[in-house]
Amino acid sequence: MLHRMDHNAEFGRWKAQCLSRADLSRKGSVDEDVVELVQLLNAREQFFTTSSCAGRIVLLDGDINGFAVQKQNRCWLLVTHKPCVKDDVILALKKANGDAVLKFEPFVLHVQCRQLQDAQILAVRSTHGLEVPLSHKGKLMVTEEYIEFLLNIANQKMEENKKRIERFYNCLQHALERETTTNSPVKIKEKNNRPYTHKKKRKPEKAHGECINGEYDKDLENDEDDNPGIGVTIFPKDY
Amino acid sequence: MLHRMDHNAEFGRWKAQCLSRADLSRKGSVDEDVVELVQLLNAREQFFTTSSCAGRIVLLDGDINGFAVQKQNRCWLLVTHKPCVKDDVILALKKANGDAVLKFEPFVLHVQCRQLQDAQILAVRSTHGLEVPLSHKGKLMVTEEYIEFLLNIANQKMEENKKRIERFYNCLQHALERETTTNSPVKIKEKNNRPYTHKKKRKPEKAHGECINGEYDKDLENDEDDNPGIGVTIFPKDY
Repeated sequence: MLHRMDHNAEFGRWKAQCLSRADLSRKGSVDEDVVELVQLLNAREQFFTTSSCAGRIVLLDGDINGFAVQKQNRCWLLVTHKPCVKDDVILALKKANGDAVLKFEPFVLHVQCRQLQDAQILAVRSTHGLEVPLSHKGKLMVTEEYIEFLLNIANQKMEENKKRIERFYNCLQHALERETTTNSPVKIKEKNNRPYTHKKKRKPEKAHGECINGEYDKDLENDEDDNPGIGVTIFPKDY
Repeated sequence: MLHRMDHNAEFGRWKAQCLSRADLSRKGSVDEDVVELVQLLNAREQFFTTSSCAGRIVLLDGDINGFAVQKQNRCWLLVTHKPCVKDDVILALKKANGDAVLKFEPFVLHVQCRQLQDAQILAVRSTHGLEVPLSHKGKLMVTEEYIEFLLNIANQKMEENKKRIERFYNCLQHALERETTTNSPVKIKEKNNRPYTHKKKRKPEKAHGECINGEYDKDLENDEDDNPGIGVTIFPKDY
């Protein structure tokens, strides 16, 4: 194991190297809605972000299991980080010849951390999604009215997702400030995302219970003001 | 920090206490399709399961954001761990007076681990889901033909999910056998679930790229035979 100072220096070099590389993502830049958050993290020597998505609506053409008909760009019929109108989707669907699926994919962020020795990647994601099959073998299976209804929901989720990013940013900022003043490690308060302690009637040590799905239960709860509504997952180093 | 033998004894007592408690889940028992997996884990002194779901189709009545109209049982219109036919859903939808959503929730398992000092909860989940709004203020927004189409997809996902549980069981069994013979820690091989190294053109150290969503990309890939297709997430102790 490396001496702490060596470890810190090595992390710093690694971070500099990674952040200096070209952004190889489809878009080639960080999403507008997470720029501040990414900057907040990258300004701290103990973190750097490896990938992120602010949340997006995507329309994909694939087979019935969600596997793409072809892996080239043609399977992406539409990608947008902004609210979306019916006509955009109707137009994009005309290009579908397989089974098109509309998804809302919420905010996700991967952060490399210096201080978590055994869990160096932090994934931050919201579970507020949608996954809706729309066409089968190129044939539209829903009405235009349904697409409008669905986009209303997707756009509302995008709006809610934006609020969650803001709340997460604020939580993180406070945690970083506390860390600076008290030298205690950064900890984001997460109320509803504990994998098995989210039901009040259960004690944290509760043994095996079937069908306790944190994500689902969270959907049923109203958001509390101090809960960013975003899940934080730690990945082990070699994951 | 506890001495290893004390720690082991304490974990053993905790496990016995937890497993002896009544199962407080809705169903009151472990899902049939994960019984063997749960038994395999609980037979090992270094693990115990805290919750699981083999995968299920659920129909919920909620408001437009997915928050339930009421928290009582009425918001659950249908829950099944078996393939589902159209008439069941049509019948259940008659009870909807809000915005009903059909979900396929894949396999999820939470495991308490003795040996991961800083990451004592392991969540195993597949990302193979569905989340489809069906009605608005009690009014059905899709055709019966669409519901049939959707249930075909949900039932296929359930079938695929079952195969993934089997593959995961086999992977785990081999890992546990290797552990017994070589005394090396249990490690499940996971090809596609790395949070940021799943694109071949990227190096593992690749810096910030926008919209690299592992779950989405995984959907586009064909399953490989040696990949259980299930995500393993480590949670820190106090998560």
